[in-house]
Amino acid sequence: MANEHAADADDLALYRQSIDNFDAALIHILAERFKITQKVGALKARSGMPAADKDRERAQIQRLRTLAASADLDPDFSEKFLQFIVTEVIRHHEQLQR
Amino acid sequence: MANEHAADADDLALYRQSIDNFDAALIHILAERFKITQKVGALKARSGMPAADKDRERAQIQRLRTLAASADLDPDFSEKFLQFIVTEVIRHHEQLQR
Repeated sequence: MANEHAADADDLALYRQSIDNFDAALIHILAERFKITQKVGALKARSGMPAADKDRERAQIQRLRTLAASADLDPDFSEKFLQFIVTEVIRHHEQLQR
Repeated sequence: MANEHAADADDLALYRQSIDNFDAALIHILAERFKITQKVGALKARSGMPAADKDRERAQIQRLRTLAASADLDPDFSEKFLQFIVTEVIRHHEQLQR
């Protein structure tokens, strides 16, 4: 029983190490993604392109949903995730305009 | 002027390609992260460990904020991001209990 508990605690520690590694990867990829969206915002502002592009957004959502399904991730979550990121991108662009 | 517009459109296409690549990476890492949290949920349920661990959560938040700052990502956003993910993890665990 004590050994079983020790094994469970070891498993939990290993799982948490993997979660921490994945989170570090996510944070660093997000940092790079926002660098690109800052460039997109500056480019669009400079060249007079409209900030929103509904066709592009629809294509992104459809692509992410397909990728999510193939990776056994809930497609609805992938769409919510993109929306969460895009909300932050819009916040950045609004800050630039102030 | 036409050349400038064409160059801007080329830049935008390249930026979008990078965004799409980063998004694919994010989706696949998230899929793996949720596989691990499903295992954590099952382990905790099986071994009678409490579902929530406030010390662990505090440590995760502090670690992500530090990583975000070093990657030039808004630490507040990294905390919101973790919260967004954890909300989905809790939803998964609740589904398991039904």
